[in-house]
Amino acid sequence: MKIPEPPVLSRAHVHSTDITPLLAALRQIHPLTTGVETFLRTHITSYPVRKRKLLLKEGAPCEHIYFIVKGALRGFIREGHKDITTWINTEGHLISSIFSLDQGGPGVENIQALENGELLMMSYRDLETLYEEFPETNVLARKLLQHYYADAERRAFIVRLTKAENKYRHFLLHHQHLSNRIPLKYIASFLGMTLETLSRVRKKFSSKL
Amino acid sequence: MKIPEPPVLSRAHVHSTDITPLLAALRQIHPLTTGVETFLRTHITSYPVRKRKLLLKEGAPCEHIYFIVKGALRGFIREGHKDITTWINTEGHLISSIFSLDQGGPGVENIQALENGELLMMSYRDLETLYEEFPETNVLARKLLQHYYADAERRAFIVRLTKAENKYRHFLLHHQHLSNRIPLKYIASFLGMTLETLSRVRKKFSSKL
Repeated sequence: MKIPEPPVLSRAHVHSTDITPLLAALRQIHPLTTGVETFLRTHITSYPVRKRKLLLKEGAPCEHIYFIVKGALRGFIREGHKDITTWINTEGHLISSIFSLDQGGPGVENIQALENGELLMMSYRDLETLYEEFPETNVLARKLLQHYYADAERRAFIVRLTKAENKYRHFLLHHQHLSNRIPLKYIASFLGMTLETLSRVRKKFSSKL
Repeated sequence: MKIPEPPVLSRAHVHSTDITPLLAALRQIHPLTTGVETFLRTHITSYPVRKRKLLLKEGAPCEHIYFIVKGALRGFIREGHKDITTWINTEGHLISSIFSLDQGGPGVENIQALENGELLMMSYRDLETLYEEFPETNVLARKLLQHYYADAERRAFIVRLTKAENKYRHFLLHHQHLSNRIPLKYIASFLGMTLETLSRVRKKFSSKL
């Protein structure tokens, strides 16, 4: 029996990664042309992660940008043996290392999965091609960077505040969705306070409700 | 005696603001077309500032982006009566409020001159026109935002570190030019330590040299 030839498929058909959630998130920022959508569909791969997986290790350059379809991840830096959480992100967010994105080299940041999850991944090389082939994506990237940079400043303000109550109030204002999902030791570190202080403040806040 | 009529000048000639230092800084990031240069020359005004002048007050939207030709400025937020310095910038840097730039609305940030100085100023409205009329400036803006966002993360890392020696080491690594120029009370606040701790750490570091 003759085995039939496989049908000739375009690259877009070979790639079956569902990038719908990413497209929806990007369209909220700036319209996408068909060309851009096709490029994204053919250059993005699905990347499942297990809880505790290290996506990036300090001293190594980050070479990909990720979109969280499902799960939660954190960035952290080290000070001696101390591990300091710098950000926590969940579904619908892009993550990468801004140091590698800016300079191409390694940074001091680690990225770790806090839950089993599903990411979408694109290489920086393909991202550069996207900017060159579809210059309008620079508008999208500018708007996204403005947004993420403002978020980063908000996170920095939380750490700069000195009173634990003020830190927690700001956390609830901008990150309430993390409050009952992420282990408290990471939230305490993210807020720049001890676990004991966080527990005390949470008790105080919940008794006020 | 008849007074001669003034010669008819194009807008570019009427505007005599010298934007050379800004053009040089931008060209290091991305090439500028003649059209972009002409737009910048005709939409930027010189803005002298006196020491202690508040350029932006919390609760008010920022409506301009500034370039520091000469001088030093700081961003700060308030926690009760406490004033917390979030950044310090000098010659050659762009400054604005990332919150206003992102959302158009007011932020929690104040901007203040630490020295008499000279700024260049462009309105957000003109900046939007620049992006629309010269789409290639979105590439420049993307690269600038990547760079300033990475800087902001570096500043946030300093505050997240818990040991004063580590904070000061990072400060010297990225901000040494501020060390003997800016009053120590602002540097201490920027590093998230008391003036006494900063003085102690500086003494320790200078005795090592």
